[in-house]
Amino acid sequence: MDNFVFNSPTYFCFGKDTENEAGALVKKFGGSKVLIHYGGGSAVKSGLIDRVKASLDRENIPYILLGGVQPNPRSGLVYKGIELCRKEKVDFILAVGGGSAIDSSKAIAGGVPYDGDFWDHHSGKPVEKALPVGTVLTIAAAGSEGSGNTVITHENGMLKRGCRTEILRPKFSIMNPSLTCTLPAFQTACGITDILAHLYERYITDTKEVEVTDRVIEALMLTVVKEGRRVIADPYNYEARANIMWAGTLAHNNVCGVGRRQDWNSHALEHELSGLYDCAHGAGLAVVMPAMFTYIYEKDVMRFAQVAVRVWGCEMNFENPKETALEGIERLKNFLSSIGMPVTFSELGARQEDIPYLVDTLCDGNGRPGYIEGYLKLDKEDCTNIYKLML
Amino acid sequence: MDNFVFNSPTYFCFGKDTENEAGALVKKFGGSKVLIHYGGGSAVKSGLIDRVKASLDRENIPYILLGGVQPNPRSGLVYKGIELCRKEKVDFILAVGGGSAIDSSKAIAGGVPYDGDFWDHHSGKPVEKALPVGTVLTIAAAGSEGSGNTVITHENGMLKRGCRTEILRPKFSIMNPSLTCTLPAFQTACGITDILAHLYERYITDTKEVEVTDRVIEALMLTVVKEGRRVIADPYNYEARANIMWAGTLAHNNVCGVGRRQDWNSHALEHELSGLYDCAHGAGLAVVMPAMFTYIYEKDVMRFAQVAVRVWGCEMNFENPKETALEGIERLKNFLSSIGMPVTFSELGARQEDIPYLVDTLCDGNGRPGYIEGYLKLDKEDCTNIYKLML
Repeated sequence: MDNFVFNSPTYFCFGKDTENEAGALVKKFGGSKVLIHYGGGSAVKSGLIDRVKASLDRENIPYILLGGVQPNPRSGLVYKGIELCRKEKVDFILAVGGGSAIDSSKAIAGGVPYDGDFWDHHSGKPVEKALPVGTVLTIAAAGSEGSGNTVITHENGMLKRGCRTEILRPKFSIMNPSLTCTLPAFQTACGITDILAHLYERYITDTKEVEVTDRVIEALMLTVVKEGRRVIADPYNYEARANIMWAGTLAHNNVCGVGRRQDWNSHALEHELSGLYDCAHGAGLAVVMPAMFTYIYEKDVMRFAQVAVRVWGCEMNFENPKETALEGIERLKNFLSSIGMPVTFSELGARQEDIPYLVDTLCDGNGRPGYIEGYLKLDKEDCTNIYKLML
Repeated sequence: MDNFVFNSPTYFCFGKDTENEAGALVKKFGGSKVLIHYGGGSAVKSGLIDRVKASLDRENIPYILLGGVQPNPRSGLVYKGIELCRKEKVDFILAVGGGSAIDSSKAIAGGVPYDGDFWDHHSGKPVEKALPVGTVLTIAAAGSEGSGNTVITHENGMLKRGCRTEILRPKFSIMNPSLTCTLPAFQTACGITDILAHLYERYITDTKEVEVTDRVIEALMLTVVKEGRRVIADPYNYEARANIMWAGTLAHNNVCGVGRRQDWNSHALEHELSGLYDCAHGAGLAVVMPAMFTYIYEKDVMRFAQVAVRVWGCEMNFENPKETALEGIERLKNFLSSIGMPVTFSELGARQEDIPYLVDTLCDGNGRPGYIEGYLKLDKEDCTNIYKLML
């Protein structure tokens, strides 16, 4: 196991009706003027924004609103949010929504006290100061409610780039599984896929003898697969929603990723897809993961056989472990397909002729050195081959 | 799943040589004068205390020392520590050791700013203020490095009582698995048993459909059993020590206990044993657990069958699930015995004729209402029967 630091100070308030705690929690964490930052109309129509506003009113905490965050959140709204917060002297940002609203909030939070372009933070410059962020989560997916990560797409070139810093971990996250019951099936499935990806990206490692994190990752995968099936069949099942929601947080606050090298190549390969086609991140991952694992599994057949046996219920083929490994990847693909995810380029709306462009922006874009590096170093030829496996 | 709050802000610094970070971490968390609180001579002899002192010297942070914490830490040293901290104007307590040194440190931390007897905190009065505590962990067992709990034995009556409060969660915990390699086999096995107990106490629940926490608990149990065997056979195996150490923290910082009713009856039954006989807490738990589970398993046969299959590798007996449940308990008992733990009263040094006294102090002591309550309410007859199963 590698040396590590783990610090997840976010205060999680989980369960039914917890959105009514928003005001009290903003107060607890020192907010005196709030930007409520949210996405589309559903948070308004459902009455959620009203309940959050009422809870702030009860604490006499003033607020302003900024809606309109879209999936794959854009730089334009971040710039607008930064300006608004400065003008209105906002000192606390409350994200209401899924990963997009939270990521946009984090980018704003880092941008407000920064004397420069917030995009610097997405180009490698460390965030040194940030406004505190709280969240009211409405989608189990990104894990952003418990992580220090934010991913923004810059409208100039549609580059999708992440920023990772401990400073941006939310002070609190309110997680009411009921709020996720009304999500359309497609979005629910995208969330399940994103959670599985966060687990696979940590599972695929060359660090040896990391039994504890292997086992916890497998535990979360088993949960998400079982409860994922249940929730697609029965969207209003609170217990299934609750299990997925907590699994989604643990999948990405890094409690199961410590002390091991991780692999974020699936995410990198996907970011080019959702950057270019504006497809849902989860849908892109569903297409990327089986292809990438098929391309790389021979580097560590036993690891892929292990997940096949322990998570996907495959019987170990002791004479030919490769078959077990491949069967596990096939079962992953079938699972994703069964919950309504695309698993090919055409189902996603991606085009074969764009592969050279995708590979170039992936490997050369944003200062990259002509390849991406995670568990394996993947050069342009590798990336081309992986995208071709998605056809 | 029940509503819950989860907040584990402790900063974990894990890995080789991390004890050299002690000074920097005390500084980071605002300490300006430190009490180094530790147990017996091993931390001194091994040079660990010297390395900790050197790291404080490098940051120009003055310190005083108070050693002598014994297993089942006593009230006498807590009173002494409180007095010393007040006199020397200590503002940070650094525990160096295992659960005993940490629990003693927490009790001191809560006692220093409290205008009254610290024992009030162990008799149900909430802790309202406390000095910050940091830890340098040397035993994987109690999970106190990541929890807000402390258990102290009062010399007046040898009553062993816990106190649970978020305020006492350590600010940081330094966890170097190498420091645990020199532990005697018996102490290592006691630690493994304590970790397993923390997992079982959370696993035994009547909260329905808590798949995510069930699975994570099972993951940690599987880790501790596998790595426990390895470390007893090969004490200097760093990787096995590291896996057990992180599992021990996750077993008790409550990340796997949220949203479900828990059962702390095993711990309550054990505290009377280690209170009266001064046996090792882990050894007491090894005697208590199989007996208690045998007494209660029929209340939820399928739960005990589930852990038997998923953790202990039993084959499910679909015609007679009770047999599977009992086989799981038997395998737990055999495992504990195989790592050198006592599993009967006589092996522990306990005496049948003390059972009435144990039952009375357990059920009536410290303001209890004549029974203990966890997953099940256990009255004096139940407790007597359970103790008798340990004979």
